[in-house]
Amino acid sequence: MDDDSSVRISDELRTWVRAAGPGARLPSTRSLVQRHRAGPGTVQRALGRLVAEGLVESRPGVGAFVRTPRTLRPPDYGWQTAALGSPRARLQRGSTMRSAPEGVIGLHGGYPDRELLPERLVRAALGRAARGPGALARPPVAGLPELQAWFAQELAEAVPAGVGAPTASDPIILPGSQSGLSSVFRALVGVDQPLLLESPTYWGAISAARQAGVRLVPVPAGADGPDPVELERAFEETGARAFYAQPAFANPTGVQWSTERAEQVLAVVRRHGAFLVEDDWAHDFAITGSVRPVAALDDSGHVVHLRSLTKSVSPALRVGAVTARGPARERILADRGAEGLYVSGLLQAAAVDVLTQPGWRTHLRGLREQLRARRDLLVASLARSAPQATLERVPAGGLNLWVRLPDGTDVDQVARRCERDGLLVAPGDEWFPAEPAGPFVRLNYAGPDPGSFEAGARVLGEVLTGSGR
Amino acid sequence: MDDDSSVRISDELRTWVRAAGPGARLPSTRSLVQRHRAGPGTVQRALGRLVAEGLVESRPGVGAFVRTPRTLRPPDYGWQTAALGSPRARLQRGSTMRSAPEGVIGLHGGYPDRELLPERLVRAALGRAARGPGALARPPVAGLPELQAWFAQELAEAVPAGVGAPTASDPIILPGSQSGLSSVFRALVGVDQPLLLESPTYWGAISAARQAGVRLVPVPAGADGPDPVELERAFEETGARAFYAQPAFANPTGVQWSTERAEQVLAVVRRHGAFLVEDDWAHDFAITGSVRPVAALDDSGHVVHLRSLTKSVSPALRVGAVTARGPARERILADRGAEGLYVSGLLQAAAVDVLTQPGWRTHLRGLREQLRARRDLLVASLARSAPQATLERVPAGGLNLWVRLPDGTDVDQVARRCERDGLLVAPGDEWFPAEPAGPFVRLNYAGPDPGSFEAGARVLGEVLTGSGR
Repeated sequence: MDDDSSVRISDELRTWVRAAGPGARLPSTRSLVQRHRAGPGTVQRALGRLVAEGLVESRPGVGAFVRTPRTLRPPDYGWQTAALGSPRARLQRGSTMRSAPEGVIGLHGGYPDRELLPERLVRAALGRAARGPGALARPPVAGLPELQAWFAQELAEAVPAGVGAPTASDPIILPGSQSGLSSVFRALVGVDQPLLLESPTYWGAISAARQAGVRLVPVPAGADGPDPVELERAFEETGARAFYAQPAFANPTGVQWSTERAEQVLAVVRRHGAFLVEDDWAHDFAITGSVRPVAALDDSGHVVHLRSLTKSVSPALRVGAVTARGPARERILADRGAEGLYVSGLLQAAAVDVLTQPGWRTHLRGLREQLRARRDLLVASLARSAPQATLERVPAGGLNLWVRLPDGTDVDQVARRCERDGLLVAPGDEWFPAEPAGPFVRLNYAGPDPGSFEAGARVLGEVLTGSGR
Repeated sequence: MDDDSSVRISDELRTWVRAAGPGARLPSTRSLVQRHRAGPGTVQRALGRLVAEGLVESRPGVGAFVRTPRTLRPPDYGWQTAALGSPRARLQRGSTMRSAPEGVIGLHGGYPDRELLPERLVRAALGRAARGPGALARPPVAGLPELQAWFAQELAEAVPAGVGAPTASDPIILPGSQSGLSSVFRALVGVDQPLLLESPTYWGAISAARQAGVRLVPVPAGADGPDPVELERAFEETGARAFYAQPAFANPTGVQWSTERAEQVLAVVRRHGAFLVEDDWAHDFAITGSVRPVAALDDSGHVVHLRSLTKSVSPALRVGAVTARGPARERILADRGAEGLYVSGLLQAAAVDVLTQPGWRTHLRGLREQLRARRDLLVASLARSAPQATLERVPAGGLNLWVRLPDGTDVDQVARRCERDGLLVAPGDEWFPAEPAGPFVRLNYAGPDPGSFEAGARVLGEVLTGSGR
């Protein structure tokens, strides 16, 4: 019987395989047909059985081979550890990048919900860009001139009389502002040189600074922004030439500098012949008032301004800009050239399209109201159901609340217990370049469903009283 | 008369402006209306005249201000030079990135012509991605799992029996392979550590290595690839742990390693506990035969494989992949996280779409024939009209010819004279990490109109005989 033949051939081949050892090439189907006086289908079935048993692997067009038993040689990359040595810096990925599993309340994230994004504008703009010349053209390293001009114009509108506005060619387009941080720290600070940073501050900036190999020098970020006296002292002690800060709705604290504070900081920076690296991440996220970048107050090249569209327009539009002047701009541009050559012209064309639609302004006005409602709801839920958590302030913009837990709280334990009870929070320690100044968590009101805020606050409250299940 | 009034008001305001000086705020329209007993339109016309003259600038919603005469204070960013100091390395932009002006023959570039790109596939895929979930979702740092799996599968198909194939999670998606070079050099080599490179080699790799602050150690790239004896010596002398090379159709030389040479190089790399950074830039550009990556021969983590889609699919799809295993992969992934967080999901979704269309395979077959025709045409034109130029070899793939000029030729002068006569060529010096080994130019047959090859070769020939006009 045909099937008996294939079993018999399998048995013989199994013996052959054991003798031949890993990597050996099996006789061709043709020669097996001849030797066993069987049909090709019978031989194929016999081989198929060995493949299914994991003894043989078939490479189409080449032949069948005795499989290397993976258990005999588990991959050992130990030699790499010797080759790589100890890393200069441990680059952590922020816990805010985790996605929340189904049914878990994710107050830990760093992004707004997609219902806060101008979805229809973005899809239409991407569709137009896919049909337009941007789909195939290679833009200049510094970016599409129209998009550069848009970023320059936005800044120029905030420039007071008597200060020179940036020109259309000052902005350099980035594949997201995170890349800009890396480039700025490499180009303007450099390996082993000191960089002052607000503390606490954005974990991504801490990560980019570590990657660039700079020496991190924390400057306390007070309730009104960095204390000019502390900042002065830090510049003097370290000889630093750059200070990284988020003057509008700082992540995580939500602090916004007054114009007076901005001018004080700028005066200190100028006195030390230094750069203010202004990360204007929340430019589109004002709830009360508006954002005037510190960069608008300076025309002497002391402020390097970073602006991103990823969070306010779409994660698909990995587009941002760094605006700088003078030799600093040239250094940053050279770094961008070495790092990435250019940013997809398609994404740049779509970004210009979205930003110049009347619907973009309308969207921003609606966004403001949605952020206000979400923020107020989370603030009220915390006050009601997690009274042990102290809100440092009700921020006038941004996406987050910065929450102080009772003194002596083990933040990591709280985060773990919350997670066990279905709530993700971001432990505050990730925002400190050195030791944390206290037990904090950051809660995002822009990402999760507002319908879950009360339940989330209740979990946090119960964990803090120790009554969590 | 109304117009007389506005002229009179302009005259008075001009005097006021001179007295008040730059930055002063003009009286409000309302107070000017009262003072001059004129209508608001008349006052607006008077102000408009001063704005047109450049004396005053108007800030909507704020008021009108005396303009700072820009000639009085030219921007002076000299302080930045002191703050920045001398750069660790000069990062040059390759002359191959220049776009050729109208009417100029551009044999200097590094990219294929758009008629060699799968334009319809790309536009359709981008359109679908713009309507799909990719337009709004944020993909993982390592990339869209489907795209990672595609890159892993492509490599796996070249893996011989007995060698473990890469798994679907080994590739890390990049915003173009240039970013991958930067990350690999930072993550696997590091500041001041030696990196061996073929010489000549891709200027973008030289630039990325300089940016990463590594020490560049050139290894001569011979007619059959790097000499294993020289490579052995370089590893021994420097203690390097990494070697960067392009085993298939190296840029600029066009050399392709034989399997035997690949195994020799791999043996040297293994013996020194080192990495081969394999830049498989021309994977899709084989004219004769095909490309089997060296990475397919190794399952012990010694080869880090870089693959880009930008040149073969579309400049808009800034997407590539680096495939590595073990701790090396973790280091690279951490660097990518700090550098860019993630790559646009839209571009990744469009890339998967293009690569899995049957039309992609068809396109690659047609591309091969077009490259062959273009290559042969430029080779013939050079033989006919620039016989002084010696072709190092007729490459079996890639986009370029590597052309040796007569001994003692001043390459930069030749490039300038060619440019004067309407031809751009790429001076070979940019491809050498140290001194050039001779007078070379690189000529691209994939980018410019083949109808211009004969004219271009004639210009080069005339310049070389000194008979150029």
